[in-house]
Amino acid sequence: MEPLFRQISIIGTGLIGGSLGLTIHKKKLASKVVGIGRNPDKLDKALKRKSVDEVTTEYSQGVQEADLVIICTPVRCIVPIFKEIFPYLPQGCIVTDAGSTKNSIVQNIQNYLSQSGKKVYFIGSHPMAGSEKSGIEAAQEDLYEGSLCIITPPAESLYDPQILKRIESFWEKIRCRISRMEPQKHDLAVAAISHLPHLVSAILVNTVSEMDNNSGHLFSIASSGFKDTTRVASGNPNLWSDISLENKEALINCLEIFETQLQSFKKEILSSNPEEISRLFEKAKHYRDSMVNSKK
Amino acid sequence: MEPLFRQISIIGTGLIGGSLGLTIHKKKLASKVVGIGRNPDKLDKALKRKSVDEVTTEYSQGVQEADLVIICTPVRCIVPIFKEIFPYLPQGCIVTDAGSTKNSIVQNIQNYLSQSGKKVYFIGSHPMAGSEKSGIEAAQEDLYEGSLCIITPPAESLYDPQILKRIESFWEKIRCRISRMEPQKHDLAVAAISHLPHLVSAILVNTVSEMDNNSGHLFSIASSGFKDTTRVASGNPNLWSDISLENKEALINCLEIFETQLQSFKKEILSSNPEEISRLFEKAKHYRDSMVNSKK
Repeated sequence: MEPLFRQISIIGTGLIGGSLGLTIHKKKLASKVVGIGRNPDKLDKALKRKSVDEVTTEYSQGVQEADLVIICTPVRCIVPIFKEIFPYLPQGCIVTDAGSTKNSIVQNIQNYLSQSGKKVYFIGSHPMAGSEKSGIEAAQEDLYEGSLCIITPPAESLYDPQILKRIESFWEKIRCRISRMEPQKHDLAVAAISHLPHLVSAILVNTVSEMDNNSGHLFSIASSGFKDTTRVASGNPNLWSDISLENKEALINCLEIFETQLQSFKKEILSSNPEEISRLFEKAKHYRDSMVNSKK
Repeated sequence: MEPLFRQISIIGTGLIGGSLGLTIHKKKLASKVVGIGRNPDKLDKALKRKSVDEVTTEYSQGVQEADLVIICTPVRCIVPIFKEIFPYLPQGCIVTDAGSTKNSIVQNIQNYLSQSGKKVYFIGSHPMAGSEKSGIEAAQEDLYEGSLCIITPPAESLYDPQILKRIESFWEKIRCRISRMEPQKHDLAVAAISHLPHLVSAILVNTVSEMDNNSGHLFSIASSGFKDTTRVASGNPNLWSDISLENKEALINCLEIFETQLQSFKKEILSSNPEEISRLFEKAKHYRDSMVNSKK
């Protein structure tokens, strides 16, 4: 069987791009996978792990024969890289990304494309897989297995349904579950379900760290509850700083709702109202249990 | 070999007491284990699971031949139950508990004992094991394996070192790691490392639930990050309402430090300061990674 693409070029071969390369090879989705990046050492590691077949630090060279380009860099680099490679993309080339915010990326690139007239396609993707680890060392060929990939096409008149189908078919073959969402809705949803938990988890660790006064006394008694609640606080700080700002508006929106919810609890604890405190805990338990049960 | 105790009586045979009964049997730490509670159905289940050898709803009868009584009820019931059983405890009997707050319990019981003159001993314990599940159905004989048990003896003049040794030896044979802490220090430490994470986790779920408007739309995209961060929000609401109030002062103290840390993040996000946001995430990552590494 013919592979889905002749050449796939992956820009950024860390955890996300590197794992994608491994999966593309395993599922035979391309005849050739090219890894592109600025750091030759990192590219070399991706090559040695057989995540990619060839590597280059020359973006122009790396994309010029690609059918599909996947930009797997930190979020803030996606639009600049798109503009940098654009002149070298062959006609008909499809570009996607793996960024965890979508609205500003999709809008920026769509505006850029509408002014160019060149037949190049962009559809934003957000594969919701990851790990608190980073780098090609942590890459796994089953990182995406069963995870959700949100596809965020722009307004209907702005994309070719065939291209959307091709992108969705790609992620399906990576073994993702697919969900389509408007870019703006996507950003608010992931702010609530992913970015806010990361932020809250880091705030929680900083609280304990503050109280611990560097003695290590407090974390010596940490149980699995603390470890689970703060797992995501071990994520890459620059990456999360980046995401917080890319999705600033939605995140601040969520943070303010969080503050209101915090005040509700605080008020009932201060006035020693066990029924109301129970009710607030019960509300949380009910929602979370429905979530877990819906995933079974 | 002679077991450590002739008769151990467990008051409250849910997850905590029920698991303890299973472990006591497995490790042969008592010749007989008696389960005491108000609800005959629950006692019956504990008997059927062989967590206890006999059951009774008569507290006086259940404790009168005990060498060791372990009160495994919700925190707010511990002191009242101690006072209720006190007249029936045999001379030399040791009493402990499994409550997750300690200062008010230890102080109350110590005051009570110092006025009585009867030779009965109380040493507070906090085995830090648990699960978001509850009830004897969730009990496991290895629930305590390798977990931490904090022992909170009162001021030195107020306890017999031999009794402390016996209690510590009991929890060691349950396979807990032992740590000794003053009751007040214990409460602040667990407020930070356990009660605050529970509260924050519930606040986080309530935030998402609020934004979701009961559509279920948001939790359909929840990934493992959200699930881990909110696992403890599935805990027993009445239990956690109880704990929040028993440890109110320490918890409010922690919550206020949390609010300060939240404002630091919010300020930097609002002023779009990537270096400072990174630094805050980095601080959290550093502390949490040290914690995880120290446990390896």
